[in-house]
Amino acid sequence: MPFVRISLNAGKPQGYRSAIGDAVHRAMVETIKVPEKDKFQVIVEEVEGGLVYDPSYLDIARTDAVVFIQITLNTGRTVEMKKALYARIAELLAQSPGLRKEDVLVSLVEVPKENWSFGNGIAQYA
Amino acid sequence: MPFVRISLNAGKPQGYRSAIGDAVHRAMVETIKVPEKDKFQVIVEEVEGGLVYDPSYLDIARTDAVVFIQITLNTGRTVEMKKALYARIAELLAQSPGLRKEDVLVSLVEVPKENWSFGNGIAQYA
Amino acid sequence: MPFVRISLNAGKPQGYRSAIGDAVHRAMVETIKVPEKDKFQVIVEEVEGGLVYDPSYLDIARTDAVVFIQITLNTGRTVEMKKALYARIAELLAQSPGLRKEDVLVSLVEVPKENWSFGNGIAQYA
Repeated sequence: MPFVRISLNAGKPQGYRSAIGDAVHRAMVETIKVPEKDKFQVIVEEVEGGLVYDPSYLDIARTDAVVFIQITLNTGRTVEMKKALYARIAELLAQSPGLRKEDVLVSLVEVPKENWSFGNGIAQYA
Repeated sequence: MPFVRISLNAGKPQGYRSAIGDAVHRAMVETIKVPEKDKFQVIVEEVEGGLVYDPSYLDIARTDAVVFIQITLNTGRTVEMKKALYARIAELLAQSPGLRKEDVLVSLVEVPKENWSFGNGIAQYA
Repeated sequence: MPFVRISLNAGKPQGYRSAIGDAVHRAMVETIKVPEKDKFQVIVEEVEGGLVYDPSYLDIARTDAVVFIQITLNTGRTVEMKKALYARIAELLAQSPGLRKEDVLVSLVEVPKENWSFGNGIAQYA
């Protein structure tokens, strides 16, 4: 059910994007009960000038390694679950591919369960 | 009013993307009363590793031809209308460009009618 | 807090994308109280066939210079604030980089304040 769109700057080594995608997915499985196989992501390396970020908003020091993670998911997670999700994403991304926690930004967009079709033209969750 | 973002793997023949865009739009016109001319889409071929999908989640067998379709649209469609939309998108994409229905994923994001400007700096629907 | 995704056709001169991003951000600062430093954007030049638009929907004459601006932001802005935002975005984009107001499309997606992490794995607004 979550659909994840990840944007980062180009020029990273092979395996870097999949490490990011894996970490984000693992965090969702561990903290907000996303099924193990419910993994659907678009991970894009943006060309120079494509990714714009403020290097110090909220007194957090960001670098060009910044990653924007936007997750579309079902409604129903509590604030505590969302906090656990953010913490775990940052933690796992720090482990691999080795991102600074300051460089991890997350945005959630919530939708009702009838807003998905996972194939075959059927609303599997409705 | 709908704004459609479509992601697929790169390497498709010419006309493939427009066939997808046309099918998705036709399905919206037929099932959820989208005006014929209300067609605004971004269709992106992602490079290798950019599109991540599970090949069997919910026992649906997906292939590299998988297409993610995210539609931002006004609130107000019933569950039945959404089901009709998913079915028709899959059906029309099977006709052209010939997608397997298993490879068609749809995500809806709903917004109120004052959340759009279609040009001239005006909120045409508010 | 706003996260802005901008799509336009490829082939623009250097500085064109940043002029667009700057104008959109300035308009948000002026009309909906977005903090000056709260600037996070992805600006993508789409290849031929990637950007699909209707050239006359709602009797607005659009050209290939059309720009789609999707803004994810916190809920709470009134309809009047949204109208002021659309007007100011179109106005500033007309000044620089010189877009026709007809070519400026805006879509807002609203989320609650606990749906963001701006770094460090923390929900800074919750």
